[in-house]
Amino acid sequence: MGNVKLSSMGKRVRKIDGVELVTGRAKFAGDMKFPGMLYGYARRAGVPAGIIKKRDVRTALKIPEVAMVLLAEDIPGPNIIGILPPFDQPLLAAEEIRYEGESIALVVAKTKTAAKEGALAIEVEIDPLEPILEPDEALKKGARKIHPAGNITYSKKLIKGDIDKGFKEAELVVENTYHTSFQEHAYLEPEAVCAVPCGDGRVTVYASCQSPFHLRGHIAANLSVPASRVRVVQAYTGGSFGGKDDVAAEIGSLAAVASVKLGLPVMIAHEREESIKGSNLRHASRIHYKTGARRDGTIVACKIEIILDGGAYSSESPFVTMKSLIHAAGPYRIPNILVECTSVYTNKTYCGAFRGFGVPQVTFASESQMDELASRLKMDPLKLRRKNALKPGDATATGQVFERSVGLLQTIDKIEERRKSSDLPRDREDDRWLYGRGFSCMLQGISNGAEGIDVVGASVQVSQDGSVLLGVGLTDMGQGSRTVFAQVAAEVLGVTVDRVTVRQVDTDSVHDSGPTVASRSTTVGGMAVFKAAAEVKKSLQKMASLMFKAGEEQVSFKNNFASLKQDDSARIPLREVAAAAYWSGFPLMNLAFSRAPDADFDHETHQGDIYIAYNFGTHMMDIRIDRFTGRVQVLQHIASHDLGRVINLTGVEGQVEGGSLIGFGFAHMEKIESEGGSITNANFADYAVPTVKDRIPTETICVEDYNPTGAFGAKGIGEPPVAGAASAFANAVAAATGVRFTKLPITKEDILKAGGKHGRYSH
Amino acid sequence: MGNVKLSSMGKRVRKIDGVELVTGRAKFAGDMKFPGMLYGYARRAGVPAGIIKKRDVRTALKIPEVAMVLLAEDIPGPNIIGILPPFDQPLLAAEEIRYEGESIALVVAKTKTAAKEGALAIEVEIDPLEPILEPDEALKKGARKIHPAGNITYSKKLIKGDIDKGFKEAELVVENTYHTSFQEHAYLEPEAVCAVPCGDGRVTVYASCQSPFHLRGHIAANLSVPASRVRVVQAYTGGSFGGKDDVAAEIGSLAAVASVKLGLPVMIAHEREESIKGSNLRHASRIHYKTGARRDGTIVACKIEIILDGGAYSSESPFVTMKSLIHAAGPYRIPNILVECTSVYTNKTYCGAFRGFGVPQVTFASESQMDELASRLKMDPLKLRRKNALKPGDATATGQVFERSVGLLQTIDKIEERRKSSDLPRDREDDRWLYGRGFSCMLQGISNGAEGIDVVGASVQVSQDGSVLLGVGLTDMGQGSRTVFAQVAAEVLGVTVDRVTVRQVDTDSVHDSGPTVASRSTTVGGMAVFKAAAEVKKSLQKMASLMFKAGEEQVSFKNNFASLKQDDSARIPLREVAAAAYWSGFPLMNLAFSRAPDADFDHETHQGDIYIAYNFGTHMMDIRIDRFTGRVQVLQHIASHDLGRVINLTGVEGQVEGGSLIGFGFAHMEKIESEGGSITNANFADYAVPTVKDRIPTETICVEDYNPTGAFGAKGIGEPPVAGAASAFANAVAAATGVRFTKLPITKEDILKAGGKHGRYSH
Repeated sequence: MGNVKLSSMGKRVRKIDGVELVTGRAKFAGDMKFPGMLYGYARRAGVPAGIIKKRDVRTALKIPEVAMVLLAEDIPGPNIIGILPPFDQPLLAAEEIRYEGESIALVVAKTKTAAKEGALAIEVEIDPLEPILEPDEALKKGARKIHPAGNITYSKKLIKGDIDKGFKEAELVVENTYHTSFQEHAYLEPEAVCAVPCGDGRVTVYASCQSPFHLRGHIAANLSVPASRVRVVQAYTGGSFGGKDDVAAEIGSLAAVASVKLGLPVMIAHEREESIKGSNLRHASRIHYKTGARRDGTIVACKIEIILDGGAYSSESPFVTMKSLIHAAGPYRIPNILVECTSVYTNKTYCGAFRGFGVPQVTFASESQMDELASRLKMDPLKLRRKNALKPGDATATGQVFERSVGLLQTIDKIEERRKSSDLPRDREDDRWLYGRGFSCMLQGISNGAEGIDVVGASVQVSQDGSVLLGVGLTDMGQGSRTVFAQVAAEVLGVTVDRVTVRQVDTDSVHDSGPTVASRSTTVGGMAVFKAAAEVKKSLQKMASLMFKAGEEQVSFKNNFASLKQDDSARIPLREVAAAAYWSGFPLMNLAFSRAPDADFDHETHQGDIYIAYNFGTHMMDIRIDRFTGRVQVLQHIASHDLGRVINLTGVEGQVEGGSLIGFGFAHMEKIESEGGSITNANFADYAVPTVKDRIPTETICVEDYNPTGAFGAKGIGEPPVAGAASAFANAVAAATGVRFTKLPITKEDILKAGGKHGRYSH
Repeated sequence: MGNVKLSSMGKRVRKIDGVELVTGRAKFAGDMKFPGMLYGYARRAGVPAGIIKKRDVRTALKIPEVAMVLLAEDIPGPNIIGILPPFDQPLLAAEEIRYEGESIALVVAKTKTAAKEGALAIEVEIDPLEPILEPDEALKKGARKIHPAGNITYSKKLIKGDIDKGFKEAELVVENTYHTSFQEHAYLEPEAVCAVPCGDGRVTVYASCQSPFHLRGHIAANLSVPASRVRVVQAYTGGSFGGKDDVAAEIGSLAAVASVKLGLPVMIAHEREESIKGSNLRHASRIHYKTGARRDGTIVACKIEIILDGGAYSSESPFVTMKSLIHAAGPYRIPNILVECTSVYTNKTYCGAFRGFGVPQVTFASESQMDELASRLKMDPLKLRRKNALKPGDATATGQVFERSVGLLQTIDKIEERRKSSDLPRDREDDRWLYGRGFSCMLQGISNGAEGIDVVGASVQVSQDGSVLLGVGLTDMGQGSRTVFAQVAAEVLGVTVDRVTVRQVDTDSVHDSGPTVASRSTTVGGMAVFKAAAEVKKSLQKMASLMFKAGEEQVSFKNNFASLKQDDSARIPLREVAAAAYWSGFPLMNLAFSRAPDADFDHETHQGDIYIAYNFGTHMMDIRIDRFTGRVQVLQHIASHDLGRVINLTGVEGQVEGGSLIGFGFAHMEKIESEGGSITNANFADYAVPTVKDRIPTETICVEDYNPTGAFGAKGIGEPPVAGAASAFANAVAAATGVRFTKLPITKEDILKAGGKHGRYSH
């Protein structure tokens, strides 16, 4: 592939599904209708902990529209869901209740209203248990065991160098404890699935989901049928951010079981409250951070203890734990590191994947530490970061050495330039406004890496008319990956992007590609598309060479034409080449399989090669704070990321802006409130999520440090901005107020409160 | 592959979709329902020839339920359909009418009744032309041209040796003219399609069809969109026999155009009358046959002139012409052959593909000739056939030499055995019954051969639970090919057939595999499945070898377990091997592409290598005829075919029995009646098709002469029995009555009539 000249890369390409999305023609799972379709609604526990004593469905079944009530014992296969070991979650609870949103029964009825009525009509008796609501309680000796194996979900260490020796070398130590809150994914479209029995012994599940192959595996297991009898098709998905993995599998299985039993289509579409209470959240965290440095700013040691509150079930806690562990020390060259990360069970809504996946929490802590250290050293914060920044050839926290595509310093350079060219208007501080500028650096591992095998399948089919149909095993949930894949295929085949159609993921037609996570779509998925397209291109090249009576190496494809390299005037439309190739018996479809290099590391110390690449970023955020209301206005936000290679500039900007806004919400607005284990703000009136009016003025600066492991050199950009923006925000607030907030979110109420009754911030 | 020992081949395997089919759960296109679905109904010409003067749709549009009327000018792309050049057929007629069933407009309405009402309400004025109803009229000098290029659709010659020299060597010449009638496919399920706009700029067409890729190409062209925007999914198909190719494309395009214009699903489902008048038929034929032989029975020359009545449009007439041409001289070693075959346009329902594809007509002629020759030579008819039968190493009519898999003599041997062991009870002839025994030999080219490129795509996906999902580009229209494909995959992967799921064809997910025709599914399609499965097996073998810590060559798979060849006691369930392989990053899906060896022949003489194999067969039929009513009873019918290798014995028997019954209907019952170019018996009350009560007692004898070009040595068996049974029937009638009928069908009325008023057949 190499660093070749590309005709359609790096440009602004409109989302290939943009028109469908903005015109409302795109069909989401909740839009689907099938004759005879029924609606499912779950009866949930409503209490955070207890033992189920009674589940009486008779009254519910008397409602005329109610067709069926499913209980745990009605699940044909094992009554288990969960993405990873220890598979500790029941599909329907029958014994112990571990969080309030837990489903006990699914009522299926002709209308959603009747299903809901039926759900309420089920008589459930639960002997309450004292809920364990904080990790400290859970970890107390003798604490009630939420799961038989105890209250620790997963606990791991990262050990690099000699931490004691490191701190001995330190001339200065900065030590703080940080907290972050739970965060809700808050996608526009809550979870929805529609299961349709196909009349051929198979069931198709249309799902708003992130990882169709996860769904397929779950559904087949719960149905107790071979996976080949289950087909999962991704419907248009209105956001996921990690959230539509566990839950989509849960409701996918429930709908499929009901649908197969009844022989009728069954839809389950969550309401917002169910989406918040019943689905996973971002882990709350407590991070104790101790940084040791020399007077010149060289960091010599980091000791970090992380406790993640994972809620009632493990979900993806093991992988989030690992990711927090690996990223906790930040994008710096630190010889001695000890990180301990533990995820703990509590009787709360379980936590799992959420854009950033454990990185935003630790980056907030590490970047707060960097600013604190700079302040102690009286050193410019960007200079301190530059001094310690990873360079090609340096060892990361896991001891992995990248010789290429470590563009952190270049992102710092870009931010440095912008710092110089745009002064923060601090001098304009007045009675009302406080001004602050914050910086952050970050890194985010690209691809599954330590989290398991990283494979993607893609199929490319060129029709006799030269149009291209592309199927990939990774989902577009709004992030624009279909457009990126179309561009990759277009680039390889020399066609315009409008000649490429990208299908929704269908588990039937592509290799099990695992989950769509870890910012790996462009990198690993793009590689699969590249391979498949390159394979089909061979046939076209062979055919064109026969038609031109010239060597294959002489043929090139561009703008839907084949031409000769030395003589661009002789052109044959690709449609003619494709038709001729078909009738000559050359294969015009290929199913490629791309596998990222395996991770190779020591599981005790997490030392070794863990990711195929890292995205590096530096952010700068200028804010002003209203002294009287605590209101924060973001004046300028610049996010500079090394993403290897830009494929779709519009898409990159979208990802950076969207990710930054999630980071901003995480850092400033969003907080799950609860009382006695029950979430009290499970709606968008009380849970404040950034709306379009809260949009921050993010500017994207791309650094393209070619990554040899990604399609055309690309690295993912989906997750990284979250951590970058959140951390820069926290540092900007500290810069503006002079107060170090160690807890996210830093709401305007927090800011106001910290300012004192008459305003410590007063002029 | 080789002639290996097989664990699941040759056995009786129940159809994998049998339960769905007999329980009515299988969804046919006409069963589909989508919200907002509309119904299309075509306004047809009603006259066989004329010039359209007026098409006024205003009254139709006033019907409240009518949503739209499509006319020729509303087709976004070229208003053309047709599988092959010369593409002479309009999707909707706007100028000339060439047969009565031609569609002029499609009315789309909320109910089918309203659509029909709308179709009748369209004011159409046609200036009638004198219809040309017979090929002789069409071929007359100065005849009106049905198409601008004239009235000959296609005309070809086959020239082998020196025909004049041949006849000079002949000591005896038999010369006759034969006729065969049009035949209707008469599937249980008439044609039906349902087009659904997908909300993503694509349209999916569910179709009762034979060749989904044909449909896709047509629909995309008529819609004027890239083929990648069109998806065709085969619905369960209740029979096709060649018939659901042109027509499915026609109504598929009409439904798709309406559906895209309206943004709503549109169904078109033919009624029986439309299915008979509006879709293609088997070509009627006139065959002049001159056979020259020596006194010892050696055939030295054949001169054959064939006129096929192809009706109004070319459809597949060119290929049928070619197939008749190639097969006309029968399965014999004849040094001098001249065949001329011409397909002619007339103002009648057009003719196209029908199981047998031009072979039943010529086989009837050639096998009647053989019996006539035997009678003239006073030679046993089977002995005469044996004397001239093709053997390995002999040249066929096209000069092609097969060294293997020419099992004709073996099929004659089998029939000879049965002749000896079961006497025809002729000695029991009495006042009422006449007894007769007829023989026939035949050959049928397997695969597309001369008809163009022969490629098939197949995908095999093994899930983490070891279950197998199979997709093939060829359709199962009832013939049982899905079961055969499942067996092939099961055999390769060492799983039981119940672990294999075979998808309906979906153009999105498999290589354009061309049409499902020419008895090529098992042979060429099976090869593609074999290749894909073998590729996936490599991953499983590699994984199992790692798990067993043994060489890959030591591993074998059987009954869903991996085991070691030398020690069968160590077994690992395939599901464990598959899961481990997935997590080790080994590909578990493959998309294979199988391409039959190309035909290579001279287009002037049709000498050369034309097919990858032939199926050879010998039939024996014992009948008795009621002297008073002409009623024929088949007492015994034995069909012995060389099909290379039996994969599913149940399936083979089904194909032989079904094909024989179609042959029987063709030879004895079925006749399209018309008056002035209008079919008068377009219903099953007047068009007599064999029902279950007319079932003939067919017994299948399989000869397995290994075919190196087919999966596991197999050759197709779908078409061959038609010609075999029809010819044996004609010869049995001749044997019983002493009258040589030179016209098919030989109905009971024909038999009665030929017997004379007081019964020439009288005892």
